[in-house]
Formats: sequence, C-alpha cells, structure tokens
Amino acid sequence: MSFDNVREHMQRAGLDGLIATSYENVAYLGGVPIMTQRSIPERLAAVILPLNGEPAFVICSIEEAQVRAGTRIPDLRTYVEFVTSPTEPIAQAVREMGLANCRLGLELKVLSAHYYQELTTQLPAATFVAADGQFDEIRAVKTAEETDILQRAALATDRAIYDAFVSGRLGGTDKEIADHLAQGIQASGADSVAFLVLGAGANASMAHPYASNLTLREGDIVRCDVGGHYGGYYSDLARTSVVGPARSEQVDIYQRLWEIHEETIAAARPGVRAKDVYLTCQAAFERLGLPMNMPHVGHSLGLGLHEPPMLHPSNETVLTEGMVLAIEPLCRVNGGPIFHVEDLLVLTAGGNRILSRSVDWSHLLVIGS
Amino acid sequence: MSFDNVREHMQRAGLDGLIATSYENVAYLGGVPIMTQRSIPERLAAVILPLNGEPAFVICSIEEAQVRAGTRIPDLRTYVEFVTSPTEPIAQAVREMGLANCRLGLELKVLSAHYYQELTTQLPAATFVAADGQFDEIRAVKTAEETDILQRAALATDRAIYDAFVSGRLGGTDKEIADHLAQGIQASGADSVAFLVLGAGANASMAHPYASNLTLREGDIVRCDVGGHYGGYYSDLARTSVVGPARSEQVDIYQRLWEIHEETIAAARPGVRAKDVYLTCQAAFERLGLPMNMPHVGHSLGLGLHEPPMLHPSNETVLTEGMVLAIEPLCRVNGGPIFHVEDLLVLTAGGNRILSRSVDWSHLLVIGS
Repeated sequence: MSFDNVREHMQRAGLDGLIATSYENVAYLGGVPIMTQRSIPERLAAVILPLNGEPAFVICSIEEAQVRAGTRIPDLRTYVEFVTSPTEPIAQAVREMGLANCRLGLELKVLSAHYYQELTTQLPAATFVAADGQFDEIRAVKTAEETDILQRAALATDRAIYDAFVSGRLGGTDKEIADHLAQGIQASGADSVAFLVLGAGANASMAHPYASNLTLREGDIVRCDVGGHYGGYYSDLARTSVVGPARSEQVDIYQRLWEIHEETIAAARPGVRAKDVYLTCQAAFERLGLPMNMPHVGHSLGLGLHEPPMLHPSNETVLTEGMVLAIEPLCRVNGGPIFHVEDLLVLTAGGNRILSRSVDWSHLLVIGS
Repeated sequence: MSFDNVREHMQRAGLDGLIATSYENVAYLGGVPIMTQRSIPERLAAVILPLNGEPAFVICSIEEAQVRAGTRIPDLRTYVEFVTSPTEPIAQAVREMGLANCRLGLELKVLSAHYYQELTTQLPAATFVAADGQFDEIRAVKTAEETDILQRAALATDRAIYDAFVSGRLGGTDKEIADHLAQGIQASGADSVAFLVLGAGANASMAHPYASNLTLREGDIVRCDVGGHYGGYYSDLARTSVVGPARSEQVDIYQRLWEIHEETIAAARPGVRAKDVYLTCQAAFERLGLPMNMPHVGHSLGLGLHEPPMLHPSNETVLTEGMVLAIEPLCRVNGGPIFHVEDLLVLTAGGNRILSRSVDWSHLLVIGS
C-alpha cells in the first residue's frame, strides 16, 4: 500500500480528503487490522487521509497500545468510549487539516447512518461523497505481498478441508468433520476461523448451514464453504465430497460442475469484463445441462470476504493483472444437495494462476470408508 | 420473543412500523440467525413489523431455503443480489402495509448511510426515526430460554478455557494454547469460535492480540478473552493464568483484581443503575490500589456481543430482573501485562446468579509445569 497510489485515486475522484472507517480500509491505510472493528463496529476507528499532508488515525483508547505498535501513522488520536463520540476526533482532524469546507470521501456503504448524521452535523460546510468505489479500485489489484499471504492462506485451508473430509466416518457426524476442519485451519497458521459452512444430509440443500450433529449415511453429500483469518486476510474455499459409495448421478453432477468450474476459471484473464466471466459460467451451465441459480459466480478476496470486482452479470469492470479472484460455481439439482467448488486465482499477463489447490479435486472425493 | 411485547414498545415510542436490519434483531424478530449478515453485511436482510398487521421478512434469494425452514413469518420476500437493491422489497412491503406516510423505526446505528439514503428516497413521505433504543430495551431482559442457552454456552467456554490453559507447557507457545482453546469451544457444541484474544509474553499488554507463536517462559501471564457462537448466541469470558512459578506480585495483583470482581458482581442487582455497577467497581479499584483505565466494566450479552445495558459511568438505565450481564474488570500495572477476569450472571429478584464458573477461578491459575 502506498499513500501516493491512494492519492492518485483521490485526485481523479476530486477528493480533498478520504476517511476510511471499515475494518478493511482502516487495516489497509492504517497498516494494522483491529479485531474489534468486526465484533464491535460501533467502536469506530478511522484513518483520515488528506490529499496534501499527513494522515491521522482515530481509535478508541482501548486499542491504543496495539495500534501504535502496528501502524506507521504517527498522528494517533484516541477517544474514550461512551464519553466522546468517535466522530468528534474525526471532525477535529478534518478541521486541523483545513478540510472543513472541502470534498470528503466516506464509506457510505459501511458507515452507519447514525455516525454519518453526526459527521454532517459536525462538519456542516463539508461536502461528503461516497468513496466506496475509490476504495474498491484501490484494493482490487493486490500487491505481491498480499497475493503471497492469500496463496499461503488458501493452500493451508485447502489442505485442512481435505484432511477434515477424509476424517469423516460412516456413522460419524457432520459436526466431527466441522470440528476437525476448524482445528486444521487454526493449526495451519490462521489467527481464527472466519466462517465455517458445512452442509450434510438434511442440511446439504441449505446455502449457509452450520454442522448440526447429523449422522453421516451412505450417499450423503458433504459440502463446506469455509474461510480463516490469516494476518488480517481471508481464505475462502468451497469443496464437495460424498460419503461412499458414490452414486453415479452424484459423480456425474460433480464432473459437469467441475468442467463448468474449469471453463469459468479459464475465462478469467486481464482485459475481459467481470460480467464476461459470469456469462461464460452461465453458458457452460447451459451447455452441460445443470441448473444455474447464482447472482454471482465469484468475487475478489483480501482483507474483505466479498471484495470487488464481484463476478455478476451487470459488472462492466475490466479485469486487470494482479487481481485475485475466487471462482465458485455451485448447483442444486431437483431440490437435492448443493454441490459447490471454489478456487482462488491471481490474474497474470497470460491468463491466471491458481493459488488454492493442495490436492487434486477434479474428481468427487469419496469419504467415510 | 413475542410480537405483542415488541408492539408495546413500538406503541410507547409512537412507531407505526419497525424495520430490523441488524444480524441481532433480524434473528430476534425473524427467529433465524443468518450467518452471512455478519460476513457480508451489504447482503441486507430485514424484518418489517407493523404496529397492526402481519410482519414481512426480506432476504437475499440465496438464503431462502434456510430462512423458510427457520422462521415463523410466512410473508417471505426475496431479492436477487446485484439485480435489485434490498431496500426495494423493504419499501414495497412498507407500502403494502399502508405505512408509506407513517413513522418508521430504523436501526440507524447499524444500517449503512447508503441504504438509509435509498430508503428515504423510496419512501419520501415516511418519517424515519432511530429505534436502536427500542430494540435495546426489547432485548435487554432475556427469556428463560435465552438465559439457558447463554448459561450452557458460558459453562462450555469456561471449561474449554481451563482445559486450554492447563495444556500450556513451559517452552510451548501461546498459539498451542489458542488452538487448544478454539478446538475445545468447537467441540463443546459451539457452531464456531466468534473471537479469540490470547495475550502472552510481549503481547500480554495489548488489548486484543492474536496468539503469535511466542514461546512461553516462566512468569509469563497468559490471558484470554474469548467467545463462541452457540445457536446464534454468544459466550464471552476472560480469564488469566501464569506460567509457573508465579511471582508474588502477580498473585497479589490477581487477588486484588478478583476482590474487585466479586465486589462488582455483588453490586449488580435489580433496581440499581448501570452506572452504579461501574462506580462500585471504580471505588473498589481505588480502595485496593490498582489502576483503573476502562470506559466500561461490562455489558449485556446475547445475540450480540456488547449488548445494552453497557456498564459505563453515564448510563442511567435501571437494571431489572432477567437481564444478563458480563462483568469484566481488567488492569495493567506499570505497563506490564493485562490481568483480566470476566463472568456472566443473570439478575434475579434477590440479586444475581453466576452462570459461567465451571471451575474455581478465585486464585491465579498456575500452568506450564
């Protein structure tokens, strides 16, 4: 991350100042992820970056020692929770930067209406504009360091999924697999498990079920969609297995889904639009005779889980080298279980490079024997 | 949860309709926690409850099967992400309920400024008011079922902490303890680990560190502050231990902190104000000669992590029977490690009942031998 690059985007958008308040953008500009921004979002943190001049970092006093140790922004301002609203030191910093009458970019898709109203009251002469798109653009192309973290996270999570799947036993439970998976992700270097969707048996047709102590039976599809937090960055992978013996129609659905997946991945390269990847995937679903019912077929990944560009049918964003994409087709045939695969890739000059395969997933994994 | 009770609060606040959009309040009114509301907040879900008439539930199409299986609201409306903004079906439901010219309560502290602006544009004749306080009041007193879930979650987490602490080895690492703890929480029936702060060695003076492969040495304080998700509800407990042998000043700080903790707990009873609990704790810190530097000394717990009433020095809320409180004094002496204890209790007619002690924490736990 370089402030110069951020300032180029600010200049193009006509912004005199940029105020980051989301977990992701505070971590990006401030250089330090603040865990409680996720669990206690009203405990606002902010980085205020003027087009000219030095940035300021506003945080709750509780986080001071940790942020000071991690950030390279020297101008750190703390507020005491329940005594001072966090918008007060933010407004104060804006005034001291001489920006009280200027055009300021805010994350309107994340900042609460309450804090937004406070800021507009405290800075009545400022013009606030949505800068969500600027942040999206700034973070869409990953640095080599970011890609490296994301690859290590993806490979570690992929291996943990494989190990957890093959630990599954006929007569065991989905929860045992989920616990094995959570443990594997933790042990692989993750700071924590970010989310863990695991669907088997009656849950397998749900989009986002937790494991629920269902007994595994022959022919049960076991699907996971899981991610960890690794140094502030996400992993996010979906894989599907079956408690053996597999039925031929299960193998068939998986093979077709995999073919769709590979075709979609091949379409992700610099120069095409995000929507083109979706449309390629949609065409492959049609050709292979599987039902498609997904508003998107993938997304970028980084400090956030669903980062732009989202691969949906109306996104005109042109993909560029250095973007990292999670491609995740899924299908559900006749009300049956969801089959779901997901890989991470980075766009290269020639096309892309897959970052997430620690084992071969090209055939339906049979477990439980 | 009963809609009648919610409607009583609406009536007192002069609200014709109430629109829940946070994870917590959608789970509360809708009866089904939606995991992705936490990880993908822009994928908005909402429950719209009119003062008179039946509620409606708006969700992204991806979540339909799961929500339908879990909710008792029959009027379920889906939108397709990236095609339709979630505020459109919300506004449509409001119109159909005949509330387009009425007074509507919103969660302004959670709803993004972006979605708020969309709603005010789509419903120009409506009067929107902040209803965060109403939701806080509604959820502050827990039902017997909620208290039961919270107690089981707390006891399971407490036991997992103890087991993880005593697994710690001299020469081992903080990460091993954290992984043991995460595994224990998962295996105790949690759907997932919600957060896991673990500070040892150089990290022990930070408020919210992750474990970081630090080697445990004699005299290291090991502190955790950890929670799991159990059926949509949180656990949240902090405990402190030391890699033996303990130094006498460590034992002394812990004993004084524990005395403060017990005194604070004793002060939490129906009829006192939230601020009184804080002030009791503050006075105990002074009397026992430990530095106090906390904006609050506790909070309620439930579907959310920091639920009102927050125990801070200006909160006039009168505590009532059935409220569940996490009391969590911490201290840091002369820049040293943080000592931190936290218990969960429910207010009873006579005072309170502690929900969270699976073992005796009244003396500093010595580990690593």
